[in-house]
Amino acid sequence: MAPKDKPLTGKIDASRIKMMEVPRPEQGLIEGFKALGDASCVVSDVLDELGITGVLGASLYRPTIAGRCIVGPALTVRNIVQREHPYETARNKVNKMAEFEAHNLALPGDVIVIDGVVGISNMGGISAQTGKRQGEAGAIISGAIRDVAHSRSVDYPVWATEITPVTGKWRIQTVEINGDIDMSGVRVSPGDIVIADDTGVCFVPISRAAEVLRAATRKAQLEQEKCKVIDTGIPVYEVTRFQTDTAHKQ
Amino acid sequence: MAPKDKPLTGKIDASRIKMMEVPRPEQGLIEGFKALGDASCVVSDVLDELGITGVLGASLYRPTIAGRCIVGPALTVRNIVQREHPYETARNKVNKMAEFEAHNLALPGDVIVIDGVVGISNMGGISAQTGKRQGEAGAIISGAIRDVAHSRSVDYPVWATEITPVTGKWRIQTVEINGDIDMSGVRVSPGDIVIADDTGVCFVPISRAAEVLRAATRKAQLEQEKCKVIDTGIPVYEVTRFQTDTAHKQ
Amino acid sequence: MAPKDKPLTGKIDASRIKMMEVPRPEQGLIEGFKALGDASCVVSDVLDELGITGVLGASLYRPTIAGRCIVGPALTVRNIVQREHPYETARNKVNKMAEFEAHNLALPGDVIVIDGVVGISNMGGISAQTGKRQGEAGAIISGAIRDVAHSRSVDYPVWATEITPVTGKWRIQTVEINGDIDMSGVRVSPGDIVIADDTGVCFVPISRAAEVLRAATRKAQLEQEKCKVIDTGIPVYEVTRFQTDTAHKQ
Amino acid sequence: MAPKDKPLTGKIDASRIKMMEVPRPEQGLIEGFKALGDASCVVSDVLDELGITGVLGASLYRPTIAGRCIVGPALTVRNIVQREHPYETARNKVNKMAEFEAHNLALPGDVIVIDGVVGISNMGGISAQTGKRQGEAGAIISGAIRDVAHSRSVDYPVWATEITPVTGKWRIQTVEINGDIDMSGVRVSPGDIVIADDTGVCFVPISRAAEVLRAATRKAQLEQEKCKVIDTGIPVYEVTRFQTDTAHKQ
Amino acid sequence: MAPKDKPLTGKIDASRIKMMEVPRPEQGLIEGFKALGDASCVVSDVLDELGITGVLGASLYRPTIAGRCIVGPALTVRNIVQREHPYETARNKVNKMAEFEAHNLALPGDVIVIDGVVGISNMGGISAQTGKRQGEAGAIISGAIRDVAHSRSVDYPVWATEITPVTGKWRIQTVEINGDIDMSGVRVSPGDIVIADDTGVCFVPISRAAEVLRAATRKAQLEQEKCKVIDTGIPVYEVTRFQTDTAHKQ
Amino acid sequence: MAPKDKPLTGKIDASRIKMMEVPRPEQGLIEGFKALGDASCVVSDVLDELGITGVLGASLYRPTIAGRCIVGPALTVRNIVQREHPYETARNKVNKMAEFEAHNLALPGDVIVIDGVVGISNMGGISAQTGKRQGEAGAIISGAIRDVAHSRSVDYPVWATEITPVTGKWRIQTVEINGDIDMSGVRVSPGDIVIADDTGVCFVPISRAAEVLRAATRKAQLEQEKCKVIDTGIPVYEVTRFQTDTAHKQ
Repeated sequence: MAPKDKPLTGKIDASRIKMMEVPRPEQGLIEGFKALGDASCVVSDVLDELGITGVLGASLYRPTIAGRCIVGPALTVRNIVQREHPYETARNKVNKMAEFEAHNLALPGDVIVIDGVVGISNMGGISAQTGKRQGEAGAIISGAIRDVAHSRSVDYPVWATEITPVTGKWRIQTVEINGDIDMSGVRVSPGDIVIADDTGVCFVPISRAAEVLRAATRKAQLEQEKCKVIDTGIPVYEVTRFQTDTAHKQ
Repeated sequence: MAPKDKPLTGKIDASRIKMMEVPRPEQGLIEGFKALGDASCVVSDVLDELGITGVLGASLYRPTIAGRCIVGPALTVRNIVQREHPYETARNKVNKMAEFEAHNLALPGDVIVIDGVVGISNMGGISAQTGKRQGEAGAIISGAIRDVAHSRSVDYPVWATEITPVTGKWRIQTVEINGDIDMSGVRVSPGDIVIADDTGVCFVPISRAAEVLRAATRKAQLEQEKCKVIDTGIPVYEVTRFQTDTAHKQ
Repeated sequence: MAPKDKPLTGKIDASRIKMMEVPRPEQGLIEGFKALGDASCVVSDVLDELGITGVLGASLYRPTIAGRCIVGPALTVRNIVQREHPYETARNKVNKMAEFEAHNLALPGDVIVIDGVVGISNMGGISAQTGKRQGEAGAIISGAIRDVAHSRSVDYPVWATEITPVTGKWRIQTVEINGDIDMSGVRVSPGDIVIADDTGVCFVPISRAAEVLRAATRKAQLEQEKCKVIDTGIPVYEVTRFQTDTAHKQ
Repeated sequence: MAPKDKPLTGKIDASRIKMMEVPRPEQGLIEGFKALGDASCVVSDVLDELGITGVLGASLYRPTIAGRCIVGPALTVRNIVQREHPYETARNKVNKMAEFEAHNLALPGDVIVIDGVVGISNMGGISAQTGKRQGEAGAIISGAIRDVAHSRSVDYPVWATEITPVTGKWRIQTVEINGDIDMSGVRVSPGDIVIADDTGVCFVPISRAAEVLRAATRKAQLEQEKCKVIDTGIPVYEVTRFQTDTAHKQ
Repeated sequence: MAPKDKPLTGKIDASRIKMMEVPRPEQGLIEGFKALGDASCVVSDVLDELGITGVLGASLYRPTIAGRCIVGPALTVRNIVQREHPYETARNKVNKMAEFEAHNLALPGDVIVIDGVVGISNMGGISAQTGKRQGEAGAIISGAIRDVAHSRSVDYPVWATEITPVTGKWRIQTVEINGDIDMSGVRVSPGDIVIADDTGVCFVPISRAAEVLRAATRKAQLEQEKCKVIDTGIPVYEVTRFQTDTAHKQ
Repeated sequence: MAPKDKPLTGKIDASRIKMMEVPRPEQGLIEGFKALGDASCVVSDVLDELGITGVLGASLYRPTIAGRCIVGPALTVRNIVQREHPYETARNKVNKMAEFEAHNLALPGDVIVIDGVVGISNMGGISAQTGKRQGEAGAIISGAIRDVAHSRSVDYPVWATEITPVTGKWRIQTVEINGDIDMSGVRVSPGDIVIADDTGVCFVPISRAAEVLRAATRKAQLEQEKCKVIDTGIPVYEVTRFQTDTAHKQ
C-alpha cells in the first residue's frame, strides 16, 4: 500500500504532513552507494568539491551499533517541547509524539531523520521495533533516544546525540513530518540520501545524488588502488608522490 | 495600517506566515506587567505554581543593554541553515533571511522572538534599527546577533545567546513566521507575553496571562512589604518567620 | 557480619558515617525490578507519573560494560577535593579517599553511588575488585574512574561520567558516607533503589519503591503485549490506536 | 549579639550548622588585604609558591558589579536539590532553602560562599538585601542567582556562575552551613579569607593568611615599583631584565 | 629605533622569532578601516565574498572595554604549557613567558595576537601597561588574561576568551613570535590586519587588505544610505525591496 | 634505512622538520613498560610523585579499539587551519597536510602524536594503513580522525578527541614535525614515551623514563600482591590497613 493511500494514525494533524511519500531515488542509486562500503568519508569529499554542506561526525551522532553502514532516503520529523509541565501531562496522558506516523508512512529502506529535543527521548524501543518491521534502514536523531538495548536487539541502528530514559511522550510534540529540518547545522530535506557509518553521517540532496555517486565511485576506486599500492611495500615518499595526483583518504 | 492589510516584503512565501497579526493582549495587561518592575523572577514563580514551563536565564540569553525590562507579545520567527556553501551563496547573493517580514508585520510593542541558528547572526544593526522604528519593544534570539554597537545606539535591546560578525544572509533561511517555536527547551507561541530583564526571560501563554498577572502582582506587593520590613532592621530570625507565611524572593 | 558490628577502616572519621547500614529493601523488591529486564525506561515513566525526579542518561553516565543491568540499594559516598597541592600530597602520601570504607560496610547487592570530583579518579581497579568480592552489584559515579580494564576483567560494572588515569588518592577527601547526595541534579539517599542499564540510571526512593515496582510491572507487561502485536504485522495506524489506550515505550 | 547567642531561623536543623561563628581573622588581616587593591592576582601568585590550590577565574564566576573588590572570612553554605517535583513542591510550598540562616549568623564583613545547584537560583534579591543589611561584604556562588537588578541596587556584589529567574525555593535544600565545601574544584572551609575582584576569586586558608598577606604585600610593592619604572619610558628590554630579578604581574 | 636594531629581552631564543618586524600596512590602510567605524561586520561580509576565513565572535572573544574599536597589524605570539609542575616552577622561578619580547618588538599601532593556553593567564596588568606605553592598539588572546582592572585603567583593550588570576609565569612557555598561528580555527599571520569591536574580531590577510578595504567602504556607504532611508519612515516592505539590490547589515 | 637517509615526501618544507629521527629509548625501556600491562594509571601515579604533568583521560581521548595498550616514543606533528575557504581549496586541490611525512620518518614502534585541529579529520584510513605498515604502534590525536572502520580493520589503534568524515586535506596545514606540542594542556616532546590504554594516555619525558619505569614497576608489583591478598578474602578493614603502607590502585 503506497503512503498516499494509507490511513493516518491521527497522532499529528494531516496539515502538518508536508509530503505523504518522500521522493524515491532513481534505480540503482541506493545500491550504488551501498557498494562503496563505509562511504561517509568519500561522500564528504565529493560534497566538499561541489560546495554542499551535509556532514555530521560520529563523535556527536553516535551509532548504537558499531560496524553498520546504512543508505536510504530521509523521511524527516520535527519535534519541539510541549508547554505544560511533564508532571501534569504525565498524569493526564497528554501524548503528542507522532514519530509513529513516520513509521506509518515509511517505505522499506527509508531512514527516519528527527530534528528532536535535547535531554529527552525522541525514539524508544517499541518505536524502533516498529521501524524495523516496516523495513526502515535506521534512524538519525538530533536529541536523545531510549531503550537502546531493545533497538539493538531488533537490529535497528540509530545515530543519536544522546541517550536517556526520560520519555518524550509527555514532553514533546511532533509538529511536522517531511518538512525541511536543521540537524546541528545541516539542512535536510525529505528524500535526501542518508549515508551513515562508524565515522559519521552524510546527507546528499536528491537532485545531485547521481552526480555525487559517480564522483564518489571514482574516488573509492582510486583509494582502493592506493591501498593495494601501500600493501606492496613501496616507500612512503613514493606513496605521497602518487597521492599528489589522485584523491585519497586522509 | 493593520498587518493583514500590509503588502508583504516577498522575502518569505506567504504560506509560511502562519498569522498576519499576533493575538493582542487585553487592555491593561502589558501595563500591568510593566508596573511590576523587573518582573522575570516573580513571573517565574507564578509559572512554577501553575505548572507552566517558560523561563530562560540571562547567563544564557544575555541582554545587550543592562538595566532594561521589556514586556510585549511575541512575534515568532524560525530560521534554519541554507544547504549551499556560504562562499557560493555570498557570491550569488542568495539571501533567504526574512526577519524584515517580521518587522513589516510587527505592531508597536511587539517582541520579535527568533528560534535562530547558532554561530551565525540572526539579526543585524539595520534590522534592529528598523525594529526600533516600528515601535517594537526588542528581541529575544536563540543564536547570534551582530552590529551590537548599532542596536545599542538606537536603544533596541536584544537578549541573545551569542554575538558574532558572521552574517546569516548567505547562510540562513527564514522558514516560518508566527508558528510555534522551541527556544532552548521552552515552547513559544505567537502572542505569548514576553517579560525580559537583567535576570532572564519569561514567556507567558496568552490564555493564562491575566491569571499570571494577578498572582504576580500579589507576590510583588508581598515582596515590597518584606523589603520594607527588612529595612526596619528586625533580626533575620524574625524575617524568615515572616517568610514562612508568604511568597518571597529567593 | 552485619555492618554495625564491623571494625571500621579508619580511612574516614566515624562521625562522618551517617548510617552503618543502608535501609534494606523489603523481600522480593530487588528481584521484582530485576525481572523487568532493562528497566530504566519503564521506571522513569513511573517516576514521571508520581512527580519524582530521579533519572540520569547513559550518554552522561556511561556504562563501562555494555549490556548489563543492575538493581540494588544505594550506599552513598561524597568526595570533595583536598586543599593542598597534589604534588605536595603525593610526596607526603596524604591519602584521604575512603571509598574502601564503603566497600567495608557494603552488603551483597549494594550499589556504591559516589558524588565525586570531576577530572579525577574516584574509584580504581583494586577498589572495583574489592567491591566485586564484597558482592556489590556495581557503582554509579559522578566524576572519573580509572583502571577500567581491571574493573571490566572482574566483571564489576560502573556508570561514570569520565575516565582518567589521574588518581584521587592525593587530590580527594571522602567527607561523608551514607548522607544525602546530589548526582548531577538528582538527589540520592542511602537505601534508594538503583536501576542501571544501557539507557541510564534511575534512583527510586525506598519509601515508594514497592509502589513504583507495581506500576512498572504493569507497564512492562503492556509493552510486551504491544511488542507481540507489532510482530503480528498489523499496520502502524492500528498500533498507534492501540497505544492511545495504554502505556508504551517511546 | 554574637552568633552563638542568636536564635536560629529554624530553616535548617541545628545539627547541620557545623559552626555558629566562623573563625575571626586576626587584627589587621582584612585591612591588609584590602590595602593591596585588586589583589586576586598577587594572592594567586603567593598561593602558587606555597602549593595551595584556591583560585577561580572571573569568566566562570562573573561579578554582578564591575570594579568591586571584596575581602572577608567565608561563611559556607551547601545546597543540593530536593527530590520531589518542583510543580508539586511549589503548590505545597515546600521551601527548604536556608541561606537566610547564613545571613542570621553572619557578622559584618563576612562573605557568603555557597556550593549551590546549577540552573537554579541559590540567592535572590531580598536575600541579597538582607545580606547587605547584615553588613556582609558580598557572596560567591557556584550555581545561579536571581534578582540581579535588586542586588545591584542595594550594592551587594555577587560572583556567580549563572543567572536565572528560576527559584530554588521549591527545588533546593540547604543541607549544611559552615562545613567544608567544594567550589568548582577548590576546597573552602569556614573562615577562609575570600578575596574577589574583576579578575577572580581567591580563598586563603585562615591558618596561612598572615603568611600570605606578608608575601603578597611584598609582591605588590615590587609591582608598583615596576609600574613606575615603565612609566619612566625605559626600553622593554630593560624592563624584562628588571623582571628577571623580581616578582611581577603577568 | 626599528625592531631589527633593538636589543632583545632574552626571554625567548632569537631563533624562535620568525620576523623582527611585521609587514607594515600601506599608507592609508589603517586609517581607511578606522574610518568605517565598528567595521567587524562589514569586513566579515567582504571576507565571505572573497572566500577567506577570518572571523571570531565577541561572545567567545570578549572585549574587556565596551565600545572600543581597534585596527592594526598583527604581531603574533604562540604559547604552550611548560612540562614541570607549577608548584615546582613557582618555587624555582622558572619563568618562560616572553610576551614582553612582543612588546619590545611592537611598533605603534600593532595588535598583539596570542595563541595562548586555556585556564591560565597569557597577559597581565604590567604587560598591558607596557603594551599601552609602546603604543600598541590592544591585544587578541585565545586563553585567559588577568589584572583586567589594571589593563582597563590604562585604557588597553583586550579581546580574550577567559579571565583568571592564575599566572602563566610558571605554567607557560612562549615558543614562537611572528609565526603563523591558529586562533580558534582562524589562521593568523604576522602583519594581517586586525579589526576588533563589540561584535567580534576579523583578521584580513595583508596581501588582500587593500581589496577588502575598497569593498568594505562601498558596503558601509550603502548601509549608511539605507539607514537614512529607514529614518525617512518608508514602510518595511519598501525597505526590503531596496535591500534586494544592495548589501545590507543583517 | 634510517630516517636521516630517507628521501622526504615534499609535503612539508624540510626546515619545518625539527628532527629527522626522534631520540631512541634505551634498551629494554619499551619492553619494561609493556610488561606492566595496562600501565597508564601506575605511570600517572609516578608522574604525580615526580611533579611532572603528562596525563590525558580516555573519556576525552577515546580509543578506537578497546582493550589495547601501546607503548612507544612520540613522533610529533602540529597541524593548523588553512586560510582559504575549503570550497576553494577543494576545487583547486590545495592539500597541505603532511602527516605522511611523519609516516615516512617513523621507525617501527613509534607513536604518532598530532596536535591537530578540532572538527576536522587529522588522519584517515589510508594514512592509518600506512602507519600500520611502517610498524607504528598507533596514534594519539587532539582533533578528529576519520575512516575509523578502516583503521580498525588494519588493527591500527588511535586515541582521538573526535570522529568526523570532514577531510583535513583542504582545511589543514601541517606546520611542524618533531617540535614541542601542547596536547590539551600537556606538553609533548619528540621521543617522549607514550603509554596509552583504555583508561588514558601518559607522556613520559625521555630523560626521566628509566626512573619512571623503575618506580612504576615497583608499584605494579605491590598492586598485584594486594590483588592477591584481596582474593584471599581478608576483610576490607584489613585491606586498607595494608594499603596505608603501600602504593595502591585507587
